[in-house]
Amino acid sequence: MSNPASLHSPTTFDGDDHFHDECGVFGIYRHPDAAAHTALGLHALQHRGQEAAGVVSFDGEQFHSHRALGHVGDNFNSAQIIRTLPGEMAIGHVRYATTGGTVLRNVQPLFADFKFGGLAIAHNGNLTNAYGLRTALVERGCIFQSTSDTETFIHLIAVSRGTNVVERVTDALRQVEGAYSLVAITREKLIGVRDPRGVRPLVLGKIGDSWILSSETCALDIIGAEYVRDVEPGELVVIDKTGLHSFKPFVPTDSKFCIFEYIYFARPDSNVEGRNVYQIRKNIGAELARECGIEADVVVPVPDSGVPAAIGYAEQSGIPFELGIIRNHYVGRTFIEPTQQIRNLGVKLKHNANGQYLKDKRVILIDDSIVRGTTSVKIVDMVRQAGAKEVHMCVSSPPITHSCFYGIDTPDQEELMASQHELEAMRKIIGVDSLTFVSFDGLYRAVRDEDRNTENPQFCDACFSGNYPIRLVDKDSGEAPKQLSLLTTQE
Amino acid sequence: MSNPASLHSPTTFDGDDHFHDECGVFGIYRHPDAAAHTALGLHALQHRGQEAAGVVSFDGEQFHSHRALGHVGDNFNSAQIIRTLPGEMAIGHVRYATTGGTVLRNVQPLFADFKFGGLAIAHNGNLTNAYGLRTALVERGCIFQSTSDTETFIHLIAVSRGTNVVERVTDALRQVEGAYSLVAITREKLIGVRDPRGVRPLVLGKIGDSWILSSETCALDIIGAEYVRDVEPGELVVIDKTGLHSFKPFVPTDSKFCIFEYIYFARPDSNVEGRNVYQIRKNIGAELARECGIEADVVVPVPDSGVPAAIGYAEQSGIPFELGIIRNHYVGRTFIEPTQQIRNLGVKLKHNANGQYLKDKRVILIDDSIVRGTTSVKIVDMVRQAGAKEVHMCVSSPPITHSCFYGIDTPDQEELMASQHELEAMRKIIGVDSLTFVSFDGLYRAVRDEDRNTENPQFCDACFSGNYPIRLVDKDSGEAPKQLSLLTTQE
Amino acid sequence: MSNPASLHSPTTFDGDDHFHDECGVFGIYRHPDAAAHTALGLHALQHRGQEAAGVVSFDGEQFHSHRALGHVGDNFNSAQIIRTLPGEMAIGHVRYATTGGTVLRNVQPLFADFKFGGLAIAHNGNLTNAYGLRTALVERGCIFQSTSDTETFIHLIAVSRGTNVVERVTDALRQVEGAYSLVAITREKLIGVRDPRGVRPLVLGKIGDSWILSSETCALDIIGAEYVRDVEPGELVVIDKTGLHSFKPFVPTDSKFCIFEYIYFARPDSNVEGRNVYQIRKNIGAELARECGIEADVVVPVPDSGVPAAIGYAEQSGIPFELGIIRNHYVGRTFIEPTQQIRNLGVKLKHNANGQYLKDKRVILIDDSIVRGTTSVKIVDMVRQAGAKEVHMCVSSPPITHSCFYGIDTPDQEELMASQHELEAMRKIIGVDSLTFVSFDGLYRAVRDEDRNTENPQFCDACFSGNYPIRLVDKDSGEAPKQLSLLTTQE
Amino acid sequence: MSNPASLHSPTTFDGDDHFHDECGVFGIYRHPDAAAHTALGLHALQHRGQEAAGVVSFDGEQFHSHRALGHVGDNFNSAQIIRTLPGEMAIGHVRYATTGGTVLRNVQPLFADFKFGGLAIAHNGNLTNAYGLRTALVERGCIFQSTSDTETFIHLIAVSRGTNVVERVTDALRQVEGAYSLVAITREKLIGVRDPRGVRPLVLGKIGDSWILSSETCALDIIGAEYVRDVEPGELVVIDKTGLHSFKPFVPTDSKFCIFEYIYFARPDSNVEGRNVYQIRKNIGAELARECGIEADVVVPVPDSGVPAAIGYAEQSGIPFELGIIRNHYVGRTFIEPTQQIRNLGVKLKHNANGQYLKDKRVILIDDSIVRGTTSVKIVDMVRQAGAKEVHMCVSSPPITHSCFYGIDTPDQEELMASQHELEAMRKIIGVDSLTFVSFDGLYRAVRDEDRNTENPQFCDACFSGNYPIRLVDKDSGEAPKQLSLLTTQE
Repeated sequence: MSNPASLHSPTTFDGDDHFHDECGVFGIYRHPDAAAHTALGLHALQHRGQEAAGVVSFDGEQFHSHRALGHVGDNFNSAQIIRTLPGEMAIGHVRYATTGGTVLRNVQPLFADFKFGGLAIAHNGNLTNAYGLRTALVERGCIFQSTSDTETFIHLIAVSRGTNVVERVTDALRQVEGAYSLVAITREKLIGVRDPRGVRPLVLGKIGDSWILSSETCALDIIGAEYVRDVEPGELVVIDKTGLHSFKPFVPTDSKFCIFEYIYFARPDSNVEGRNVYQIRKNIGAELARECGIEADVVVPVPDSGVPAAIGYAEQSGIPFELGIIRNHYVGRTFIEPTQQIRNLGVKLKHNANGQYLKDKRVILIDDSIVRGTTSVKIVDMVRQAGAKEVHMCVSSPPITHSCFYGIDTPDQEELMASQHELEAMRKIIGVDSLTFVSFDGLYRAVRDEDRNTENPQFCDACFSGNYPIRLVDKDSGEAPKQLSLLTTQE
Repeated sequence: MSNPASLHSPTTFDGDDHFHDECGVFGIYRHPDAAAHTALGLHALQHRGQEAAGVVSFDGEQFHSHRALGHVGDNFNSAQIIRTLPGEMAIGHVRYATTGGTVLRNVQPLFADFKFGGLAIAHNGNLTNAYGLRTALVERGCIFQSTSDTETFIHLIAVSRGTNVVERVTDALRQVEGAYSLVAITREKLIGVRDPRGVRPLVLGKIGDSWILSSETCALDIIGAEYVRDVEPGELVVIDKTGLHSFKPFVPTDSKFCIFEYIYFARPDSNVEGRNVYQIRKNIGAELARECGIEADVVVPVPDSGVPAAIGYAEQSGIPFELGIIRNHYVGRTFIEPTQQIRNLGVKLKHNANGQYLKDKRVILIDDSIVRGTTSVKIVDMVRQAGAKEVHMCVSSPPITHSCFYGIDTPDQEELMASQHELEAMRKIIGVDSLTFVSFDGLYRAVRDEDRNTENPQFCDACFSGNYPIRLVDKDSGEAPKQLSLLTTQE
Repeated sequence: MSNPASLHSPTTFDGDDHFHDECGVFGIYRHPDAAAHTALGLHALQHRGQEAAGVVSFDGEQFHSHRALGHVGDNFNSAQIIRTLPGEMAIGHVRYATTGGTVLRNVQPLFADFKFGGLAIAHNGNLTNAYGLRTALVERGCIFQSTSDTETFIHLIAVSRGTNVVERVTDALRQVEGAYSLVAITREKLIGVRDPRGVRPLVLGKIGDSWILSSETCALDIIGAEYVRDVEPGELVVIDKTGLHSFKPFVPTDSKFCIFEYIYFARPDSNVEGRNVYQIRKNIGAELARECGIEADVVVPVPDSGVPAAIGYAEQSGIPFELGIIRNHYVGRTFIEPTQQIRNLGVKLKHNANGQYLKDKRVILIDDSIVRGTTSVKIVDMVRQAGAKEVHMCVSSPPITHSCFYGIDTPDQEELMASQHELEAMRKIIGVDSLTFVSFDGLYRAVRDEDRNTENPQFCDACFSGNYPIRLVDKDSGEAPKQLSLLTTQE
Repeated sequence: MSNPASLHSPTTFDGDDHFHDECGVFGIYRHPDAAAHTALGLHALQHRGQEAAGVVSFDGEQFHSHRALGHVGDNFNSAQIIRTLPGEMAIGHVRYATTGGTVLRNVQPLFADFKFGGLAIAHNGNLTNAYGLRTALVERGCIFQSTSDTETFIHLIAVSRGTNVVERVTDALRQVEGAYSLVAITREKLIGVRDPRGVRPLVLGKIGDSWILSSETCALDIIGAEYVRDVEPGELVVIDKTGLHSFKPFVPTDSKFCIFEYIYFARPDSNVEGRNVYQIRKNIGAELARECGIEADVVVPVPDSGVPAAIGYAEQSGIPFELGIIRNHYVGRTFIEPTQQIRNLGVKLKHNANGQYLKDKRVILIDDSIVRGTTSVKIVDMVRQAGAKEVHMCVSSPPITHSCFYGIDTPDQEELMASQHELEAMRKIIGVDSLTFVSFDGLYRAVRDEDRNTENPQFCDACFSGNYPIRLVDKDSGEAPKQLSLLTTQE
């Protein structure tokens, strides 16, 4: 999903201060329960996008679509709905809403009837040259219905001179730049693509004879499918009745997988490029413990995302791990600005200090990242009010100094605490006795047992380094993001 | 609106057996309460389409849209909604749903961002060569979102080589064939067009300095605007800050206004081409009385549409006019097939015999038209059960023998009673002692004080005569109506 | 329904200025489609209450209830709903909302489990001593859930010492004063009651072997049932498997049927106490013509309620009847205060002048009643703006000078135009050349061919005469109407 | 809440197999933001009931109510809603729905107008003699609107001869038997009561000068209030403008607090009777480790409820703690029976094996309790499929052999695995290599550092022992639970 406006959206009020992955995708070929399996897969990918979900199936004659704002489990939970999605092929998508103006027409998969038949498509990522492409398409008479990058892609397919759908898709792929993992179905094929750098994940799985594409392996687990392999960076896979066909339509280049998927985005039980995410997070915690070496009484995670690193830290350091902060799981996107009273309570809607484990203790708080730092300030204040003697914060990522333009919802750079302040200043603002971020090398070792290659990093770590591996065409051209000139009050 | 599928839709169960006009349009230029006036205008045009309504306004910067299924009064009835439609220009549309699958994306006005800026458009009518145009547009890479003719028109504008919006609209107009009255707004202009034959109505009005376009004059009355003139057949009017400009982009040809607008579609208080509709309906009733000359005790209209003709008949014949059938105004589109029990009651949900005026009487029933005849059978049966001694039916239109392809929802030809049966057979099926239809000449005299020109009729009366004044391109090419290959369960 | 607060509610903005009947009731005993028939009967009674509807059925084991805000046709229109109301006995109720605070818990029928089993009850009317009874019941420990008189009645049944349900109902009936027609079902019986004066209507009908109770005969017609007789004033009918049993639990007294039912409340196709309502309205029109004798060019009804009297007037006077005012039937309770703009248009949302029949004409407007007079002022202004040379208003009821306390929603007395102004002053305010009300004797002759008995009028005409036939106990005691001390924001 | 029907309700399909607390209550006296604080308190108590929430406030004149099905955060999240609840006193309630037929009228707080004024009441618990009381009340003419015990309590207050509200409440309290903690407000007082045994929790807190009553201390934390003390078993506290008054209306008896509140119901950050719940759960884990002594490679909690005991177990045993099972937090009550496909997946909707930590490992699973055992079977199967070499299950409660009748939603006794099977049989069914439950003494030591007093246990542990400290009057009388004889399809 690609609304450039999202880059500037304020974080909604829920005590959250994280980067957010913007999408998850899933596809399945030739399975009698294609839509039900897609719904399950999307449910397992719900952490990649909570705002909306959509499924398109094909029954041999007709495509069928159901899209809804809200969680998968709230919208694809009845046999009645699943029956409206007949057929043995389906793709699905979950998305993270980036602005208040979420409207259904922006919900994926998008669908279009082409000369050669229908095609439904869903993607996770962001095109960096979408604006320029869009302008050219509008000039030749294309009409846009949404602000989604996916629609740019669809128009490129529509106007391609290719003689079949694979040629047309390839033609379109060669014109776009950016980070994307996409899935599509036509009347006969299931298609999957990862961009040349492979920034966003996409895996291949199989259940019986049915092929599956999914953002993460946890969506294979939920339906009992086996993991086959990751789709490779720059690979186009086409699955049809003759089997799986792999194409490499791009000039080969180095992979730059998003290292933040390991730190926060992916589910801990997923394996990403063959590595277990939970294990890597524990590794980062252990690296942190080695790098930091603070004496303390208790290691306390900021739940839930800080838990694995805290376990790793506690194991490595020998300091006891305790749930000194309890999370209330009933807060989703609710309680948004009801009253000043409630706004002031802020973080308490989601977290409560478990006083007995903090009072008179030297506390090491483990968090996964610091974005604006606003939540950290409140958490630390809460821990201090609970009576902690010392509060140290250890963060399982390097300081975030740059925005992401590859499909992650991030604040403007000037809102990122680490882009505005040195370490000591950050420590003071957050109000801790010490503040430690894992080092680049520590992070890379935790992920892959090797130091960071400073010349050519093994991963995309642009948000920490400013080293953007894919050109930011639209941004560098200084052109404003294209908005539709129509505002609708519903739909 | 033009979904050809509508031609095959079964009449919904509400005791109704009428042709239905499919749309009403309204537009206003430079009025501080543009949206509120548009909502009021649409309310006055509600009889032209009860299924959905939409308004698009332009505030000098941005276009704003609100569209909803249901009545105008139920959806544009709050200051809150009206405030979401700021600006001094607005157009609006009401439509008659022609299939069960009404979805919001088919609701007009449609909007598109073009190279030259946004344009919103709404129309009343039907294009007869839409399918061919659409096929060609898809081949060149256009992507359709709906099954609406309006979208075909929008793509023609988008791909036009014209250098300004009027040129582009003109370019598009010259490619389409059919019956249509359309209104549109761009960032600077209010545009109105009637097709070369002028089949569907469109009038110009003024309130203060603000120009108005409307399907009927009753929408001028509701806001206190004055009637200026009818937009002429084949006329393109463009209203901007320099005033009203009239263009005639088509080869001149004879006007063929739809005579059924006088018989049933238009509101009785509207003036159509300068003639009062209620008066014309009374005239038809008087012609009927002259042509028919039956002796009877009472003239009873089938309410509400038969009332004016019945008054005219009673005046001319001297037979007393009585409300021998009472209508329950609370039936709209409700009670749709709840139970067999209720289905069997049929006509009674809407009409009840007022027994005292029927018992032992010779009754002349006045109805405006007979389509399938199903309702007539039930009405006559009800009147007979109430004790009528004789039942004569006089119909204020000629027998309907052909379908309409110019924007009216009609059954297939084989479902039209008069296309399958001679007069005497119809009389028997309906179960009346006599059955009289007004003659062609009687009808034309009632409307315009002159007999029908059989060589070149003054009006379109194709549904009575089969004499179609505009080519039925798609129909004659035998091509199936284009359907989207995507089915959505909501949206 | 009996919320005394209703007496003070402002008329909603819909160009309406009428008294409103507050309820309609229906009941059926031993019919396999009891609920479907009840829904149909309520649909025919919809004019007696548009705000909410409810049905309770009994299936031999359990009572079943469905109640909803809105029209019958919108809420009881599916087999699914009807199936939730199984059984061969059912009663139903439609009500006119008298305040903005309509909540579902006030919607009838009300139900209670008693020692002897369940009982559901619905009534049309108003108790005049409800407040006193309620106070006494609360003192002995009864807990009220609503502000409805029906609940008072239910508590009286609950605390009765009677040994069976008929004894208990009788016991309760003897304690209440007021105007009411009620229907009830127990596990074994269908019960109907009219108050001793018989102010509100209730008729007995039969379809096959199934007994029916209904406010009006039009609800018998819709299901094809035959009219048996009116329930008599002061009669309690109990229908069970042994047949119909009639009881007269009250001291006999003179009947005082509400004469306004003839003038406006009842549907024109109903027969009330054996007399056809439409015929009576025509009679009143004829009386008006005789009493008034104005020379004019055209008789124009204020539609729809003025139509029958206008037909009668035209017939009697020989002046042509014309629909000089056209009504837009799409206005129900919508367009409520959207904007000042729309508010100012007032009457035009509902009525439009049909100019050709008014311009340069001497017009006699026929309306059924003048309550506040606000609508009359606007109608007359609209007619004058359409060019009428003279405007005379003839009203088919005497001047309304008093509020109703017997189940009709009326304004406070001081808001009634005729209670504040003499005839000539009213004429000037309304802006007509002459203003004529039918005389008391004219009205009585129209209804029953005899003059009004001034000593002991044959009907309740308190709203015209101030002659209240039933004591206004609560009102005269000066006690404020009891309100619940709980406000709920939904439910 | 006390619908006895709940005892037989099947557990909804969400991979859950727990007892569920049925309610949480909150009250606040004299605070300018009474309703907002109540909403926050209820949000913190959401784990005690997710199905519905309600708040009643009093503004000095009028009571105000808002009740809704669903989560607090979804229904009390706007300033608009909070403004409908003005005043400085409020009480609130969350409830766990026990049957599919949850209807709004069963949602608490309940409200009634008495002779002395209004009273709103909410309670957590269950009356064991409600049926007998209800029967007697109906016989004297009381009418019940719901199936809630709270209504029985309200009628007892209504018919009491007491001369003020405290006398009446006391009068009612003396007639009921059961387990309950209740809060109430009148026009002048905030009232709190715990039953004589003190089975359910209720604490007193203070924020500034405002008194608070709450089921748990976590609701004090969220608003920054301080904990004062627990309301004592058998204590009636009345808070008014003269301060807090404590009454002891019952014969003194031994306290029997529900030990399951420590094991599962209470939030881990709450302090119950002064003891930290998280600490106690860790203690139980440590006791388990001591009692069990199995050699293994990894301690894995069944998340989330098994986590604290697993941490305690790991600390005590020295075996590493790992999140070998990952929970998907997006499953609430969703995905209920969409398709057979999804039903079969069962536990996977909520849990996924984190394979790396299970494969070839000897695994100790820690769960808090085994009710039916259905989930345990699936969890163990999932762990084995992930490659575990050995699977041992350690449960931090004794075997559940009896149903609860004191306000907890439990299955019938025959559905409880431990009531039907010996330990070895259970082990086989669940499919583990060993199955260990904490001993009674181990449990009591974990909670209070002392062995269980077998003569007179310090807590209610009836579900483990069958030792019911409060008479089960209705159950022992063999009378069926009273159902209303009315079924409603909505409301």
